[in-house]
Amino acid sequence: MKIDLNSDMGEGFGRWSIADDDGLMSVVSSANVACGFHAGDYAIMDRTVRAAKERGVGIGAHPGLPDLIGFGRRTMAVSDADMEAMLAYQVGALQAVAARHGHRVTHVSYHAAFGTMANADEGLALRLARTIAALDRELTVFSMPGQLTERAAEKAGLRVLTLFLADRAYTAAGTLVPRGQPGAVIHDLADVRARVRRFLEDGSVMTIDGSRLPVKARSILVHSDTPGSLDLARAIRSEIEATGAELTPAHRLMD
Amino acid sequence: MKIDLNSDMGEGFGRWSIADDDGLMSVVSSANVACGFHAGDYAIMDRTVRAAKERGVGIGAHPGLPDLIGFGRRTMAVSDADMEAMLAYQVGALQAVAARHGHRVTHVSYHAAFGTMANADEGLALRLARTIAALDRELTVFSMPGQLTERAAEKAGLRVLTLFLADRAYTAAGTLVPRGQPGAVIHDLADVRARVRRFLEDGSVMTIDGSRLPVKARSILVHSDTPGSLDLARAIRSEIEATGAELTPAHRLMD
Amino acid sequence: MKIDLNSDMGEGFGRWSIADDDGLMSVVSSANVACGFHAGDYAIMDRTVRAAKERGVGIGAHPGLPDLIGFGRRTMAVSDADMEAMLAYQVGALQAVAARHGHRVTHVSYHAAFGTMANADEGLALRLARTIAALDRELTVFSMPGQLTERAAEKAGLRVLTLFLADRAYTAAGTLVPRGQPGAVIHDLADVRARVRRFLEDGSVMTIDGSRLPVKARSILVHSDTPGSLDLARAIRSEIEATGAELTPAHRLMD
Amino acid sequence: MKIDLNSDMGEGFGRWSIADDDGLMSVVSSANVACGFHAGDYAIMDRTVRAAKERGVGIGAHPGLPDLIGFGRRTMAVSDADMEAMLAYQVGALQAVAARHGHRVTHVSYHAAFGTMANADEGLALRLARTIAALDRELTVFSMPGQLTERAAEKAGLRVLTLFLADRAYTAAGTLVPRGQPGAVIHDLADVRARVRRFLEDGSVMTIDGSRLPVKARSILVHSDTPGSLDLARAIRSEIEATGAELTPAHRLMD
Repeated sequence: MKIDLNSDMGEGFGRWSIADDDGLMSVVSSANVACGFHAGDYAIMDRTVRAAKERGVGIGAHPGLPDLIGFGRRTMAVSDADMEAMLAYQVGALQAVAARHGHRVTHVSYHAAFGTMANADEGLALRLARTIAALDRELTVFSMPGQLTERAAEKAGLRVLTLFLADRAYTAAGTLVPRGQPGAVIHDLADVRARVRRFLEDGSVMTIDGSRLPVKARSILVHSDTPGSLDLARAIRSEIEATGAELTPAHRLMD
Repeated sequence: MKIDLNSDMGEGFGRWSIADDDGLMSVVSSANVACGFHAGDYAIMDRTVRAAKERGVGIGAHPGLPDLIGFGRRTMAVSDADMEAMLAYQVGALQAVAARHGHRVTHVSYHAAFGTMANADEGLALRLARTIAALDRELTVFSMPGQLTERAAEKAGLRVLTLFLADRAYTAAGTLVPRGQPGAVIHDLADVRARVRRFLEDGSVMTIDGSRLPVKARSILVHSDTPGSLDLARAIRSEIEATGAELTPAHRLMD
Repeated sequence: MKIDLNSDMGEGFGRWSIADDDGLMSVVSSANVACGFHAGDYAIMDRTVRAAKERGVGIGAHPGLPDLIGFGRRTMAVSDADMEAMLAYQVGALQAVAARHGHRVTHVSYHAAFGTMANADEGLALRLARTIAALDRELTVFSMPGQLTERAAEKAGLRVLTLFLADRAYTAAGTLVPRGQPGAVIHDLADVRARVRRFLEDGSVMTIDGSRLPVKARSILVHSDTPGSLDLARAIRSEIEATGAELTPAHRLMD
Repeated sequence: MKIDLNSDMGEGFGRWSIADDDGLMSVVSSANVACGFHAGDYAIMDRTVRAAKERGVGIGAHPGLPDLIGFGRRTMAVSDADMEAMLAYQVGALQAVAARHGHRVTHVSYHAAFGTMANADEGLALRLARTIAALDRELTVFSMPGQLTERAAEKAGLRVLTLFLADRAYTAAGTLVPRGQPGAVIHDLADVRARVRRFLEDGSVMTIDGSRLPVKARSILVHSDTPGSLDLARAIRSEIEATGAELTPAHRLMD
């Protein structure tokens, strides 16, 4: 069995950073690279892509809303046409930075409020998916299973790679238990490892109310900006390897 | 005879604009599109590219330093590696915006201090040219004849399109008379037309001290951010047509 | 009778401008100066304040949301505490720029979405008014009559100067006819002058459905970013003078 | 004997931070608060000022060049008038944020390239000092002893508080050994403590070549953005207290 492990990367700005990118780059198989709107700048993108290339890590664009102060987490009143333009702008910027290092952007993963807006509006989701398809039909879209983003990408003829969050509780309906609710985040690494093993061996997760939920996912996502993200990623990778599964960058999974 | 007429475009930001882009787009054959660092944003780039596509105008990237307040006119202490990364970022962003409108970026023209820095440092000029070549070997570089930018582009295996400024006085050495000196800018449109005619028919310009200077150039550049730039562009185009020359986008000249 | 004529000023950025500020500065008695968030920068603020000082024009802060691309017109998901902090930041920045020119900030006028948010939330309106009072109890708040902003300012112990828009149609309820509806904007300068005269002589405006509406206002606002704003301001000033009213900066009206 | 211990604070942006500000705020007696140009934003400034107020820490403005990506470390081609305007803007912004928390800005400490530019140009240094004096004659300027900034502040009638760097090697000429040279930075905390003790008891420092250098300074500066800055600050404070000196905010030293 092959599985991808991905994380957001390059979410600093100038001298600032938010995660141990160097550490994470040695652990994950795919990196979602911030493109300068919610985080990231040309120099950070350049370093991130070069490191990914060196370590055989696949890269995707991680486009966000143009809001450095808010880290792209605040929805904004932006037209669909502007959303399409800012998506193309960010993906293209990363494609070129990748090209100069002989690397290639192989997926797109929406960041925070950018994704929230896409997943709340079917028309917008489709316009965005078509924008991606116009740039490169080979691009894979990352999505939580069942979201509008997934369906829109399929409609636009794009491949989708669905995500599993090993450190987040699921409801019986298959959605994430919202942060802030008790038990929403699983902090104990042994628990996380057990969930990874169950997901890999049984294709399921135990929901917060104790039932078995089948999970259709090909990649495990680690949010790099949570404290302890490097340890979390290492635990997940180590469990993947213990299970005998093969860590594989997203774009190789899709071939 | 075929000649290109080009101008900088999309040098606004948000609600701000600096030139009559709509007017100019009907007059020029090539547009150098600002890419968000010294001016321009995703939405303006999108509108500019769409208008260029509709009117058969060729587009190039017009990369600048990351300095909105200074309009990219202030040199900055930036490393060569950062210059390469910001060049790739900007060109790529425009390539993607163009792709979604079925258009294509076919040239690169450095903006203000970005170009000044490249033309003052042979090593940097070459690194930048190679960055462009890594993105697309078909890209043409715009340059004043004789500048480091020209030689670097040729060394990197890129084609170069050299520029003639019909409203600027030349010294006998072939350089522009610096702004601020008497006679540096030719304001009289009849004079400009006469210079265009001479350039097209004789391949030369009369220097400020009255001698004949051969000018090797394939495109006439109009700075859009000078007052009266639209009238200037119209006068030049009208003279080109009166001379029987054929207005031709830069990328068609190079085939 | 004394009346103030005010307009937004300094709403450019770097090389960009949006109105004929030089022209307007000779016509108005009060200027609302953009403070760097939705528009304006330190250099533009400096020039604007100096010009105002030279011509005896009163100045106020015109704080907006931090959104240059959107010109502060898009509401954002921002906490009340952040709104207070960004209000204080902007007012203080202008106070200091004014101080160095021997001028003084005497009023505050919210810009676009910043004002929209304040006028939609009584608690926020009061927190913002108290923030202003904490900076300088002598500051006057500009407000449309009847808005939350007006009441909040009074509650916080601040003086309020209410506004009349001579080029906008009013409903019988005293609100502005929304832009986009027929007749919302009065373009004919003779009509505008007639409305100014009626307002000054009779304290009323003819509503869009032909009834008489009393208008309690001490200042006439001209939106500088509408085309023809300078001609509009001149027409209003000329009518004010023809009526025998005395053009008076806002802060002198309040003494 | 009374001595101040100061550090740069609030040098984050949005979600990013660069130092353990909470920790440092419990150790220092004065904080130099970033004002939004090289780092810092309205929300961070607000939090920083509130924390300083709560803990009795004095605050100063820490103005920088408008360059988030470069963290204000790159000199820029900026006119003197622009430098004055951006200085006023930043100090004023902080003054207002402080006012709303019942706190007061009592000093100014230039950041990185802003200070480098001031210290390289006597005319500029004086213009900046006069700008500060125009805002508040009670403001104290922080300076390394002997720099242009010190003389300019005195000329402008301002008080100056000179700085000692306990973790940096000094040359016999009284300048800092440049970073990068061997021994430039003292990493051993026992050595740092010994230097603090000598400075407090003897008013001198041992230079890198082993001679005794008198040091005229009233405050010890800890660069918060160096690794281990919190431990460094704690060691210095502990040594100050062990020596029997009294930690005193800068503005109280000047009374």
